[in-house]
Amino acid sequence: MSEHTLVLLRHGESDWNAKNLFTGWVDVDLTDKGRAEATRGGELLTEAGVLPDVVHTSLQRRAISTACLALDAADRHWIPVRRSWRLNERHYGALQGKDKKQTLEEFGEEQFMLWRRSFDVPPPPLDDDSEYSQAGDPQYADLGEELPRSECLKDVITRLLPYWRSEVTTDLRAGHTVLVAAHGNSLRAIVKHLDGISDEDIAGLNIPTGMPLVYRLDDELRPTVPGGEYLDPEAAAQAAAAVANQGR
Amino acid sequence: MSEHTLVLLRHGESDWNAKNLFTGWVDVDLTDKGRAEATRGGELLTEAGVLPDVVHTSLQRRAISTACLALDAADRHWIPVRRSWRLNERHYGALQGKDKKQTLEEFGEEQFMLWRRSFDVPPPPLDDDSEYSQAGDPQYADLGEELPRSECLKDVITRLLPYWRSEVTTDLRAGHTVLVAAHGNSLRAIVKHLDGISDEDIAGLNIPTGMPLVYRLDDELRPTVPGGEYLDPEAAAQAAAAVANQGR
Repeated sequence: MSEHTLVLLRHGESDWNAKNLFTGWVDVDLTDKGRAEATRGGELLTEAGVLPDVVHTSLQRRAISTACLALDAADRHWIPVRRSWRLNERHYGALQGKDKKQTLEEFGEEQFMLWRRSFDVPPPPLDDDSEYSQAGDPQYADLGEELPRSECLKDVITRLLPYWRSEVTTDLRAGHTVLVAAHGNSLRAIVKHLDGISDEDIAGLNIPTGMPLVYRLDDELRPTVPGGEYLDPEAAAQAAAAVANQGR
Repeated sequence: MSEHTLVLLRHGESDWNAKNLFTGWVDVDLTDKGRAEATRGGELLTEAGVLPDVVHTSLQRRAISTACLALDAADRHWIPVRRSWRLNERHYGALQGKDKKQTLEEFGEEQFMLWRRSFDVPPPPLDDDSEYSQAGDPQYADLGEELPRSECLKDVITRLLPYWRSEVTTDLRAGHTVLVAAHGNSLRAIVKHLDGISDEDIAGLNIPTGMPLVYRLDDELRPTVPGGEYLDPEAAAQAAAAVANQGR
């Protein structure tokens, strides 16, 4: 049996993580802390001897910069790069740009958690003329009708899996160690798929920023260790708890 | 007639540019000044409305980081990336790691300029057991016998043109605005090819760091303006003169 290695890396802290705003497809930058997290993520890869042969990123700045910094720190800056909008963060609809704490206070705990963590209830759609809309962005010009105006996690899985199946698994089966540098919800979609997590249980899964999560996969691309392994498990557990408590 | 746009961008100042050492294939980082140059390069692209659709880089950190920073500044971080060792800097052989000024003093003006600027005289080869050799580097493991131990500009042209013809021109003909983020000598090789510069005259051509050089090409991929156009011509002329005087 051969073993395939997949590394999932959520971008480091972004400007809007720091400000506690819903971000989604708004293309914000990393903070200095986020840049340091990305570099540290790369150092952890080196220390663990997990050396990516190819990287897949979303089209979003915070994931792309994280990949640049982590791979530079791991001395793997030179590997091939593949990108797709299908790895983008969940589109947060009309919540994009809104404060998480204010949203919680305005709409109450139940509605807030429904939007944040329900599997199949998207927030209200974002108007194309909103300053937080991507309707006019050249990088999404090719999407046409596929451009989302709001997404739930189910929608993310639907648009992500074609890319997973055609591109990521092809690299894994070719024997490459694959790094996917992406976002809280696009990575939750991958983890749900890999670990066969139910629509209910995925609500409780949180992925911290900047912490490499390593999956060893068998020939059927099933995890040999369910849930994978964080390279710094203690820091990851603390950081995941902080993600769960956002808005509070 | 359709017009094709090619942007050549030499990496920003590197650690060894600053220390005046021959670098070649040694994978040094950018200085803070080099990072600022790369970002400024991206801003110049935005100001000129020259927006790359695809980027080609060498496998070297200083070119890759320059591309990351310039494209981030130009809001084009999300475009497809292609890389090849064929865009790497000239391999400087046994001169790699040596001080340019000391080399000039030790070997004299004639030998120094022969190594730096002659078309077809490579420096002595670098030993595989040198600390500055790339013979054991995983990123070049696939090269086998093609791994250079020293190169003259003619050698660079020989290994670069297959990539130019198969990859870069394909993107140009597809109508993409192409950014090539690379090195003093790999870019001199491209310019020599594009402008039909003689083996003698190319010695006098110097490309400054971090300054976008834009070529508009006709359907035969011939420059409509010979020599292309720097987006900041005054700064480029000053910087090119400084490159010509290195070692003095």
